[in-house]
Amino acid sequence: MSGIDGLRDKMDEVTLEMIRLLKARTDIALSIGRLKEDAGIPVTDESREENLRQKIISLCGEIGLEESIATRHLNFLLNESVNVQSAGRNTHLSVFHKAKELERQGQKIIHMEVGEPDFAPPEMVGEALGEACARGYTRYGQARGRPEVLEALARHISKEFHPTPQDNVMISPGARFSVYATITTLLSPGDEMVTIEPAWPAYRDCALNSGIKTRVIGTTLEEEWEPDPGRIEDMVNSNTKMIILNYPNNPTGKILPEKLQNDIMDIAVKNNLYVLSDEIYSAYSKNWKSVLSYEYENSIITQSFSKSHAMTGLRIGYAIARSTIIDRISRLGALCLTSVSEPIQYAAMRALEADTSEFAGIMQKRLDVLSREAGKIGLEFAAPDGAMYLFARTGIDGTRLADEALGRGLAVAPGEGFGRYGDHVRISACQNEKTLIDGMNILSGLVGEHR
Amino acid sequence: MSGIDGLRDKMDEVTLEMIRLLKARTDIALSIGRLKEDAGIPVTDESREENLRQKIISLCGEIGLEESIATRHLNFLLNESVNVQSAGRNTHLSVFHKAKELERQGQKIIHMEVGEPDFAPPEMVGEALGEACARGYTRYGQARGRPEVLEALARHISKEFHPTPQDNVMISPGARFSVYATITTLLSPGDEMVTIEPAWPAYRDCALNSGIKTRVIGTTLEEEWEPDPGRIEDMVNSNTKMIILNYPNNPTGKILPEKLQNDIMDIAVKNNLYVLSDEIYSAYSKNWKSVLSYEYENSIITQSFSKSHAMTGLRIGYAIARSTIIDRISRLGALCLTSVSEPIQYAAMRALEADTSEFAGIMQKRLDVLSREAGKIGLEFAAPDGAMYLFARTGIDGTRLADEALGRGLAVAPGEGFGRYGDHVRISACQNEKTLIDGMNILSGLVGEHR
Repeated sequence: MSGIDGLRDKMDEVTLEMIRLLKARTDIALSIGRLKEDAGIPVTDESREENLRQKIISLCGEIGLEESIATRHLNFLLNESVNVQSAGRNTHLSVFHKAKELERQGQKIIHMEVGEPDFAPPEMVGEALGEACARGYTRYGQARGRPEVLEALARHISKEFHPTPQDNVMISPGARFSVYATITTLLSPGDEMVTIEPAWPAYRDCALNSGIKTRVIGTTLEEEWEPDPGRIEDMVNSNTKMIILNYPNNPTGKILPEKLQNDIMDIAVKNNLYVLSDEIYSAYSKNWKSVLSYEYENSIITQSFSKSHAMTGLRIGYAIARSTIIDRISRLGALCLTSVSEPIQYAAMRALEADTSEFAGIMQKRLDVLSREAGKIGLEFAAPDGAMYLFARTGIDGTRLADEALGRGLAVAPGEGFGRYGDHVRISACQNEKTLIDGMNILSGLVGEHR
Repeated sequence: MSGIDGLRDKMDEVTLEMIRLLKARTDIALSIGRLKEDAGIPVTDESREENLRQKIISLCGEIGLEESIATRHLNFLLNESVNVQSAGRNTHLSVFHKAKELERQGQKIIHMEVGEPDFAPPEMVGEALGEACARGYTRYGQARGRPEVLEALARHISKEFHPTPQDNVMISPGARFSVYATITTLLSPGDEMVTIEPAWPAYRDCALNSGIKTRVIGTTLEEEWEPDPGRIEDMVNSNTKMIILNYPNNPTGKILPEKLQNDIMDIAVKNNLYVLSDEIYSAYSKNWKSVLSYEYENSIITQSFSKSHAMTGLRIGYAIARSTIIDRISRLGALCLTSVSEPIQYAAMRALEADTSEFAGIMQKRLDVLSREAGKIGLEFAAPDGAMYLFARTGIDGTRLADEALGRGLAVAPGEGFGRYGDHVRISACQNEKTLIDGMNILSGLVGEHR
């Protein structure tokens, strides 16, 4: 025991010395913060952080410390210095909640801010819910899903996307929970993930919530929303653990050319990155290739009944990955949720029998209407390849425009929710053509006033 | 800018020096680990950690560093040294999943391991599910719940427990998600929470998952499962942020004497602790007093339809707290889930009309049967005041007993899942009396063989 006691005393000493340095660091951070505020410089400085990271890595080489322990520690320190700043961002959801509040006060709002198809769920969904209790779908079960539901899903996936065994599937209350669980359990604080913006804000929010650093590849309308593979490659370092793909894309409707998608997958494979491919808009697309078809062992595909079967409010989606990944992410499901609502699982299984192929054609026609109307107003955009949105540059601050539109009964999503796209708005095609035209007329009036 | 650059260089130097110390600390931890393994000493040593914490706090006083920054840093370092060791624990859920697997293989199992009432959900639940789609319960909504469902719940809570406004309520997919969200969002890594064992394992698992330290007050059968308030008071330090109560208790069925509950609440109020009171067994109790009735601003009450309305597999529960706490925990709901399944919300609202008062009487009779049979076998236990379990000392290793019982067609929950109760088992009364007697006969045979 005396050997242990001696070591422990030494360990205490070292720890106390670290606390002294933590004090020094905190004081310096405060001074820098004051100087930055005076000079109007933003709080984070990526090149500066990257430089320090490199110094730490080379120090690790010299002193023989495992890099990942040191960089996790760095991240802990960086998080102490920087306050998370995303709470105030205006997103499609903040507009949606404002719009709902206005409706409760009796106002009429045209909802072109959320991706919620106005179609009814397939008829058998209502029937299935009515039968669920009588059929015994009322009990605790495995976090991953009821075996017969998983089996039916695996058959569906195998037919629609790529051959997939049952133990590669996990059911979740919406694809959102699968995204959350994937990011939270596969990555650790201090790890980095790459997103391609514009992007659904939830990827970044999930990372922020877990102390994971998001590195952003910004794309532009001029590039037709295509990321440069060279930039992705340059961004990957030893801490990079994941890249997120989302095609057909929310908000742009972009589908990557196959060659470009192949190149990105090559970079992921070469660097052993997880690929989280969120494919919930696949039913609204042509010429789209699932990441499943690459048979890459570190890919995770998320899917949902929300868009394909107009079942948003039922909250059911799923993840597809190799079984060891599925086991890890369903452990978080077990911790948070026990299991997924059984009547809803049963309804989803029955929904697989439905033919919802007409949805895609209707949505395409609506997107054509939106494109035509947006063209008339003089908005700039790339015609979407799929999904259900138009992401357009208006030249006006999107948050201001969204606020003003709401005052006139139209809800649209400001661009800043999707990245550095302050002068864009996302316009959702989830209404009938007449309503879309009414909405675009409101927008037209507003845009005209700003010019 | 040159002022900032100079400070930044100094900050980098300090950070690199911290990494050198991290290396020294990691090396010492390795040496201690080896010595401990040789000597057969457990990995964590609470008194040692407490001692270091005290040294750090007094150092903070000397050098003027905020205590919470330093102790969070300590916790980061402790987490780096200790691997989380709970994965292998045998719980009611691990037995449940083994039992389900055996059933799939064709074996007949008596389920006395899980707290899942064998009652059917009230009739209107099935009806409501059948109507949900037609009534428009299929859309995205607020994370906190649909307004009319929240309103109905608030009325129910006000009538059954204590006057409660609507904005103090959040709906969640099971009480489990409310527990997870409460622990995860109100506490930070490095914070501590107090649990009174035996306890449902999820409290500790949620804390572990978020890097929060659990401090345990163990209670014994001899103390009639009553915690000593003096011990709770001694355990509270500046890092202690929450105490978890769960009465009627899982697994013991204990309800605290009112004087004792008052004393614990006094300690919480005095030390400004959050009180998470998990009251999901309240429908199966008499002489029970909700923590809501203390009107303590830092209390969070979790409730569920699972036990009171036999709706386990539907996954719906709720949390009650002041609105600023509800806002914080529902933000995690928005991030993970968007919202709670609308058909299930509608079914729960309708279930509030049901009279399920007969459930409590039936369960009490079953607990009497279990007590009688357990007495015959010579098991030691305190007669439960409520809930639906018997927590009994068998004098035999509970995990071994549960394994052997499973081989004979009986599932019971080993005591180690609930804390340091290796020679206990939890026996659930969620079967009819005849089945319970069959199960107890299997247990009787096994216990006899071990004596």
